[in-house]
Parts: sequence; C-alpha cells; structure tokens
Amino acid sequence: MAYATYEYHGARHVGEVQDDTLVPLTGVGELSAETTPERLREATRRTDARVALADVRLLPVVPRPAKIFCVGLNYHAHVTETHRELPTYPVLFPKFADSLLGPDDDILLPPESTQVDYEGELVVVIGRAGRRIAEADAAAHVLGYTVANDVTMRDFQYKTHQWMQGKAWDASTPVGPYLVPPDEVDLEKAGIRTILNGETVQEADLSMLIFSIPRLIATLSTFTALAPGDLILTGTPGGVGYRRDPQVFLTDGDRISVEVDGVGRLHNLVRATTPDGGDR
Amino acid sequence: MAYATYEYHGARHVGEVQDDTLVPLTGVGELSAETTPERLREATRRTDARVALADVRLLPVVPRPAKIFCVGLNYHAHVTETHRELPTYPVLFPKFADSLLGPDDDILLPPESTQVDYEGELVVVIGRAGRRIAEADAAAHVLGYTVANDVTMRDFQYKTHQWMQGKAWDASTPVGPYLVPPDEVDLEKAGIRTILNGETVQEADLSMLIFSIPRLIATLSTFTALAPGDLILTGTPGGVGYRRDPQVFLTDGDRISVEVDGVGRLHNLVRATTPDGGDR
Repeated sequence: MAYATYEYHGARHVGEVQDDTLVPLTGVGELSAETTPERLREATRRTDARVALADVRLLPVVPRPAKIFCVGLNYHAHVTETHRELPTYPVLFPKFADSLLGPDDDILLPPESTQVDYEGELVVVIGRAGRRIAEADAAAHVLGYTVANDVTMRDFQYKTHQWMQGKAWDASTPVGPYLVPPDEVDLEKAGIRTILNGETVQEADLSMLIFSIPRLIATLSTFTALAPGDLILTGTPGGVGYRRDPQVFLTDGDRISVEVDGVGRLHNLVRATTPDGGDR
Repeated sequence: MAYATYEYHGARHVGEVQDDTLVPLTGVGELSAETTPERLREATRRTDARVALADVRLLPVVPRPAKIFCVGLNYHAHVTETHRELPTYPVLFPKFADSLLGPDDDILLPPESTQVDYEGELVVVIGRAGRRIAEADAAAHVLGYTVANDVTMRDFQYKTHQWMQGKAWDASTPVGPYLVPPDEVDLEKAGIRTILNGETVQEADLSMLIFSIPRLIATLSTFTALAPGDLILTGTPGGVGYRRDPQVFLTDGDRISVEVDGVGRLHNLVRATTPDGGDR
C-alpha cells in the first residue's frame, strides 16, 4: 500500500495509490500527530472520488515539512570519492520546505550555478513527535519512506565550509512520488539507483548505510524535537557528478531518475531558465 | 519607537513599548507581508488594553519564523580567533523556530553538552518578501532589528565539519526584547556587547561587519525567497568563550546579557537541567 499527496482541481488530498488511480482518504489532509500508519490504513477510502494519476499534480509527499534534515556522508563509496575520513557522527545540514519540488516537476537550472548535481536518496518521513528518542524506540516514529533527489549546486556548496547555500535552493529537490509505510518494504534488501539519461550513475544497497535510520532519529532528536511530517534525507551513494572524471553536471534536457526498490521512482526533466531564474 | 511580541493571559499580542508598559496594536498579530514599518507606526494603539511590561511574558520578536539564517564569521576579531581565513562569501548555517527562546527566559543547559557558549549578535527581521533582491533594494525588505544570543553547544558544533547540531538546539537562542524599525537607530554608530556576570566578554562596533546587511540579504535571496518574519543573525564579534584562554562555558547560575545600542538588551539566567533535559 502506498500513499500520495496530490492537487486536483485546486484542492489538496492524500490518497491511496491503486494501480494508476488515486483514492482520496477521508479525514487525512496534512500529516499531523494523529497520522500513524494504522490511521492511514484504516481511513475511509472515498472511492467515489477516485481520480487517474495522470489527471493530478503530485506534490512532495509532505508539502511543507517543519524541518528537513539531510545526511552528508552515509555510504562508504561516497565518503571515499570525497576523500574525507569516515565520520563517527552523521554530517548534518538542512533544507527548507521551499527547497522541495513535486516528483514529476521539472528541475529548473538556476542561472547563477554552472554545477547542478544529482544525489539520489532514501527519505524517512516522521509520523510521531519526539525528543531524545532512543534507537530502540525509533521505529515507532517513522510514518514511512519516500525518495528524493538532493539536487545540489556544487559551486555554491563549496563557497565556504558550510554547505547550506548549495543545498537549500528553492524548488530544487524532488520528493516522492509515494509514501510507503515501513511494513510494506524490506529496506535491508532494497537497492537505490540514480539514472541519468538511461545510464545508471549511482547504485547501492540500503543495508550499506553507515548510520542506520534509528541512529539518525536518535541523533537528531537529541538536539531538536521531531514532528510529524519532518523529513530525513539519509545520504547519497557514490557516483555523484562532481566526483566523476570528467565531472558531470545537469544540463537542459537531461532526464534524471532516482529509484528505491519497493518505495518508488522519481523522474524529472531538467530545464534551463531565463537569466532572471524564471519563476524559480 | 519599539515593538514587542508578548503573551498576556494566554493571548498573543504585538505592542508598542511605552516606558515600562506595552500598548497592543489593533490588527497586527503575527508578522505578515502587510507588516511594514509604516503599518506598525500607523496601527491603532489600544491604550485601554495597556499592560505593564512586568506582567507579560515577552516572546521572541518573531515567535515562529519560517527561516532563520545565521552568519558564521562576520567580524575580523572573531575570524582571527578561530584561525580561519577571511571569508569571501558569508558562512551560513540555520536555526529552526524551535531553537528560539524569549528574551527573559532562562537558558537551560542540556545534559548532553559540557561546552555551552554565548555569541552576541544583531538580528535583522525581514518585513517584505523577495527573491534575488539587489543590494541597493535590500533596505526596503527590512522590518527592523533585534538582538540574539546565538547560544552554541561547541562540543556538538565540532562533531563534524557541518555545524547544525551545535547551533539548532531547541529552546537555546534568546531573541528580543524588541523590534526596532530601521529609522529609529543608526547602526553605523551602534556598538554590540556581551556581558557575562558583569564582565564584558565581547565588544564591537556594528560598522565592523565584514558582510553588510544589504549584502547578506542579496546573498541569501539568491538561493531562497525571504519572507516576512525571517531572521538573519548577522554574526558575533571576537571573545567567544570557546576561544578564550582558559576557555569559558556557561554554567548554572550565570547571568548573560547581549546589548546593541539603540536596539535593546537581552538578559538571561543560565540554569542546569535534570539528566533527561527537563522540559528542553
């Protein structure tokens, strides 16, 4: 079972994915403290309001998270390619709600950057609030999983030793397409892949995460409360464009996909923008 | 003229500061796109609802900003004491709305950190939305100024090369006490000081900022839209506790003040907490 957040005729819904249709759930609008996997499963399905996936605009699974945490170096191959030491504590940086894009939206290249890069990632969606969550209790705080492309402006990321200005570009980061509850997928057996114009450029098993999902939840909630709808982007495998030889950056017309087995697949078209950045 | 956001008998107000009283403004609740310095000046004063400052709880000037930007190295003396090179682009990192404290609230020392440090800073409050704002236009986007203590858990800040987990601790960062519109203060002539138990530990002139306020607004709005209520913490002078010899960290019973001439003064008591972090 999987869920999507979507816009249809100007209204926003959460719906269950059934084949190529969406069936809206009664009483489940934005995610809240009451949105548990059980609640999603048990909510009334408005089958009379079923719509075709092709007729809606899919939104980020959580359109306006209060907090978005990203993990910097969480796969060995990516640590190696960046020539950094293996971290003993997760490397953490933020994005904003404004950073997100829908899973089918175009990635617009901002005129200020010439080094727009991809980073395929598994995303954890928090479903239950908590502070100082023990690793052993972390699973109860997970609503489900989705997929992100942590699109990064490398020339901005490395302007200083702090990365925010390369990571939190407005409307840069596709998230989706679906929310998949934890009991619907075995992440220990799932792979993640990023595919650029048909070529697989990143590939790893999710069992290879250096810092596990419970460890990330415990680490983050030590310093700040997690709330329903918060996102954790769990890091990217090796193979990012910046570390390839020759380097590869996203250009007008590229098609970039990120897929996680059993969770979903993002597919975005890359487009150049006008010198003023268009609407981005 | 100065304004405060406060809670009185469970309701939230924005009021004008008149001597030791607050006079609530009609129609100015949370900051919004319509909150301009003119609007604040012209709003009806409900003198019938005047309250004593001593009878209210002052809140952060903006209780729930959508974005809080901090600048890392923006005074020469602080750059020197950190042994870093002079930046050519602002060093940027985030806090969350949850990071904020009211200007009179106690700073509770989390049990996980043994290196809680102060950083006195001038804060810019955004009053008008914008993206890709030119330096020459930046002044029109400033609603006013206030003061912050960018309280930092140094042992967490330096766990990796990214600082977020040392900077975004919940309920760590006093902001206030007042919002002062730009035409009420000449920042070029203002000084900033941090005072720990009566001893001045940081002192500088605001004219010494490496990156000016218009430059910061232009830089930030290049990658993300600024919105009313967003905060920019403009960086701290030299003299932070971590760089002193011997090092100085905040301990139970300390009294820490940050003041900016013509803008205001924070004054907070530091308190230890129980091993579970108390309510923080």
